[in-house]
Amino acid sequence: MSGEFDIIARYFAPLAADEGAFGLKDDAAVLAPYVVTKDLLVEGVHFLSKDPLDLVAKKALRVNLSDLAAKGAKPAGYFLGCVWPAGVKEEAIADFARGLAEDQELFRVALLGGDTTAHEAKGAPLTISVTMLGAPSSAGVIRRNGAQLGDDVYVTGAIGDAGLGLRALKGEIRPAAPAKKYLVERFRLPTPRLAAGGALAGLASAAIDVSDGLLADAGHIAETSGAAIEIAAEKIPLSPAARTWLDAQDERGAAIADLASLGDDYEILFTAPQARRRSIEMAGQVTKTPIVRIGTVTRGAGPKLIGEGGKPIAAPRRGWDHFER
Amino acid sequence: MSGEFDIIARYFAPLAADEGAFGLKDDAAVLAPYVVTKDLLVEGVHFLSKDPLDLVAKKALRVNLSDLAAKGAKPAGYFLGCVWPAGVKEEAIADFARGLAEDQELFRVALLGGDTTAHEAKGAPLTISVTMLGAPSSAGVIRRNGAQLGDDVYVTGAIGDAGLGLRALKGEIRPAAPAKKYLVERFRLPTPRLAAGGALAGLASAAIDVSDGLLADAGHIAETSGAAIEIAAEKIPLSPAARTWLDAQDERGAAIADLASLGDDYEILFTAPQARRRSIEMAGQVTKTPIVRIGTVTRGAGPKLIGEGGKPIAAPRRGWDHFER
Repeated sequence: MSGEFDIIARYFAPLAADEGAFGLKDDAAVLAPYVVTKDLLVEGVHFLSKDPLDLVAKKALRVNLSDLAAKGAKPAGYFLGCVWPAGVKEEAIADFARGLAEDQELFRVALLGGDTTAHEAKGAPLTISVTMLGAPSSAGVIRRNGAQLGDDVYVTGAIGDAGLGLRALKGEIRPAAPAKKYLVERFRLPTPRLAAGGALAGLASAAIDVSDGLLADAGHIAETSGAAIEIAAEKIPLSPAARTWLDAQDERGAAIADLASLGDDYEILFTAPQARRRSIEMAGQVTKTPIVRIGTVTRGAGPKLIGEGGKPIAAPRRGWDHFER
Repeated sequence: MSGEFDIIARYFAPLAADEGAFGLKDDAAVLAPYVVTKDLLVEGVHFLSKDPLDLVAKKALRVNLSDLAAKGAKPAGYFLGCVWPAGVKEEAIADFARGLAEDQELFRVALLGGDTTAHEAKGAPLTISVTMLGAPSSAGVIRRNGAQLGDDVYVTGAIGDAGLGLRALKGEIRPAAPAKKYLVERFRLPTPRLAAGGALAGLASAAIDVSDGLLADAGHIAETSGAAIEIAAEKIPLSPAARTWLDAQDERGAAIADLASLGDDYEILFTAPQARRRSIEMAGQVTKTPIVRIGTVTRGAGPKLIGEGGKPIAAPRRGWDHFER
């Protein structure tokens, strides 16, 4: 079986509209006057059965809000499709709707329509489909494919937390209690970087939200832009909890590559011309968003992780793929 | 557990946008310049595991095209979300994509974006989510809530075929081979009434596509319009195959009520002022669509099925509901 991106390229890209769909190589389609994104969440794949349903609802909205953020767009409203497990309890739906309501208030979006149904098969997983519409910034939509040779590469926030949080939930790692709480929250409840994304419209040459993993998503920008993205391993921003985990690993380079290959960060990875360094710094300050410069757009192809002394570090895998395990 | 419409009214309607979402009581939202619909298809619920995947793909598009048809809108493009079973074969995805390609050609729509993922759990069902965008007619969008007292009630095509087709597939009824072939095809491959819908914009006072069952969908128009919909049982249009089945039933009234309660017809049920009878007839002729007058909008509430001699016929159930079985 081919990988997820092969599947899309082979079977679905030929079906894509000539205008607005970007050959399915972007997080969103642009249909004047909207930017539109669609992300699915499946129980057992994107969230765990024991995750509280109000948080699952919020995550379903936030992963789509994150796509809009990476396009520099402002959320307008969304369509919701839910397939509930057979015999779902009404309280579960009420919890889920409460989560939606709280995040609608927080992010100023509203439900526009959708479809609600239930599985017939026992044990079939809760599946949530959100289609989110946003208004593009007056400065335009940030695309994936605009990275230019010599551009700087930046990322917001911190990388690897959500993946470590998932491992902690599965019992694969055992961080101290406060670190575990922080990491799990980062997995369950990402923060879409809407303010930063809006400020980056007109400044960034390319952007993507980090959902497949920093290296995999750098690879997406690299591929669509026809360039390589070099990332300095030691410049990747880490939270104190992730740094504690890193310091306990034997192979530091491999461990950083591991963090840069986990998914679900929902930070914005973007490129911008060197001449805009001061403007990018201002954008971070104005929107109170940590933004760190981590690399450069160079000749070549693919993402490259560079260790101390300029030595390349091999990446363990190219991020999350639902068809290649 | 409450029913599907209670669930929507209680938990999701309070989340709806003030403008364009119509309190989630319509098949589509209207977001200038788009009409947007979202329908889910779940294996084991909306299609059978043995249904050919190219037909499943077409049905996923067509149920959404049918929603646009009932709004009088013209298809523009769609977003696709797929959750494939664990271990899905690539040939299955290729079959599915071929069905999409054929219907894209036929209905002149294109894929705009989406999300492709796979279940982790063995045996979890294929789930398809389509969000379809359409352009409204220059004559406006046909709403659900516009039926006026005294309006005529019409339906396109024939009612009950798809439900009988599903029963034939399940072995619950055993029609003759040609009839079975016809009925099963009507279940697997509905024909969205796009041409008729477009012609009805500006003529129909209210419309809905028949997916929950003729009586249930008449109930949706009745409820949102604040009136009753009376349908003459003997005027409901039936195919030769459905008529053969009907003639073999002992209780004719109950059998017609049964046909009017099956779902998946994807015909358009609509209302229009009596003064427009000639225009409606013309719309049917021009678009080569059978349109039959089957009833009247009256004072009161709910759908009413009226037998010969004016005697009401009790309906067996109010159509398809995924939460009340």
